[in-house]
Amino acid sequence: MRTLKITIAYDGTDFEGWQSQPSGKTVQQAVERGWEKLTAETVRVTSSGRTDAGVHALGQVISCTTNCQLPTDIIRRALDANLSRDIVVLDVQEADPGFHAIRDAISKRYRYVLQDGQHLDVFARRYCWFVPGKLHDAAMHRAAQAMRGTHDFSSFQTSGSERASTVRTVTDFRVERRTAELAEKIVIEVAADGFLYNMVRTMVGTLVEVGRGARPESWVTEVLEARDRRQAGMTAPPQGLFLVEVDYG
Amino acid sequence: MRTLKITIAYDGTDFEGWQSQPSGKTVQQAVERGWEKLTAETVRVTSSGRTDAGVHALGQVISCTTNCQLPTDIIRRALDANLSRDIVVLDVQEADPGFHAIRDAISKRYRYVLQDGQHLDVFARRYCWFVPGKLHDAAMHRAAQAMRGTHDFSSFQTSGSERASTVRTVTDFRVERRTAELAEKIVIEVAADGFLYNMVRTMVGTLVEVGRGARPESWVTEVLEARDRRQAGMTAPPQGLFLVEVDYG
Repeated sequence: MRTLKITIAYDGTDFEGWQSQPSGKTVQQAVERGWEKLTAETVRVTSSGRTDAGVHALGQVISCTTNCQLPTDIIRRALDANLSRDIVVLDVQEADPGFHAIRDAISKRYRYVLQDGQHLDVFARRYCWFVPGKLHDAAMHRAAQAMRGTHDFSSFQTSGSERASTVRTVTDFRVERRTAELAEKIVIEVAADGFLYNMVRTMVGTLVEVGRGARPESWVTEVLEARDRRQAGMTAPPQGLFLVEVDYG
Repeated sequence: MRTLKITIAYDGTDFEGWQSQPSGKTVQQAVERGWEKLTAETVRVTSSGRTDAGVHALGQVISCTTNCQLPTDIIRRALDANLSRDIVVLDVQEADPGFHAIRDAISKRYRYVLQDGQHLDVFARRYCWFVPGKLHDAAMHRAAQAMRGTHDFSSFQTSGSERASTVRTVTDFRVERRTAELAEKIVIEVAADGFLYNMVRTMVGTLVEVGRGARPESWVTEVLEARDRRQAGMTAPPQGLFLVEVDYG
């Protein structure tokens, strides 16, 4: 048996998320079926984490064990050819036996894309959250810095999905306005040793309250200290969220 | 009666092109129905030109006459709100009586986006033509310069759609590689006083033959001089094509 580390990107728009389920098209099912077509072997693939319906990935990492003896570059091309055009196989590598995409991840990076302004960018609408009006991106960036470091992030966790610990370490958090042809975008990047359920989307919903002037920058610290999901902003919609990369050290 | 000049952008993916037809969703029908919801008035709108199924617009211009007395900025917002999320109303202006979006256009600019390389960019697949491998963009740019100026472009016209004259003047033609996160793009921009049917897409199909090394740069001049559609390259697929702007002087 070999263990493989597979990196894929996907447009989450038409998927019901990562995890296999009885009804609905999921990324996991698509990859497992693509694999089955390739090798006539039934595999179970594990990703670094479940992305929700509508969430995208630029670099999702998958582990699996297989009896397939094909070279990794052939697997990459053949598996890619067996998948629909909204998933692409970026890389296939041999991994150490026992490599596990969830357990071995030491950090992850997410991106969230917002569009503000007067006109919806029709070409980006599947890949961002449109907030009409003008957001104060510099205030959002300053406010976000309060979330860097090691904190209890229970205010930013969707209830009903508790983990053993709600303490995480955020190593990078930046909010940047980027020019684009039809409409500017606000790109939020956050890296951490792990994320609670809906943590990025709740952080973004909270920062948008600051950006539209409804709350002061200092409010983010209050929300963090409250350890109460009801104190935070709304959960931002899925289509602006991208899993950028997973680091295994 | 007032005459209005309306500028819209649209994602052409889910439209059967511009022109109204008995079956299928078209941009013209969408705009006319949106207008009817707004004013309870039946209007006929004219665009600067018909875009085909799957072709996009960053700045399509429409003319219409109306009895509606609302201010232009209110019309812009209200018409926009009455359209689906793949059309956006960018601008509404008063026009001189008799303004006509086709007849008064003095030049147009189109863009065509190609993606080459190893991996399909899943987030751009609705908005570009993926050509696997590496295209020689500098050779494409040099070859394209032969099409600048005033020429008989009958080699680049889909047959069965002949216009009175096949002579057009191309005022700008550039091919540029642009970096992007998942995959580089090759952006082709061409401006002319008018375009024959499928002219841009046939020019692009021809330049791709040069880019992939199947034909020398000088071949474009031969194709142009042949005045025979069969000498040119394939018609590039619609999803890479954008109508960028229409100039009325």
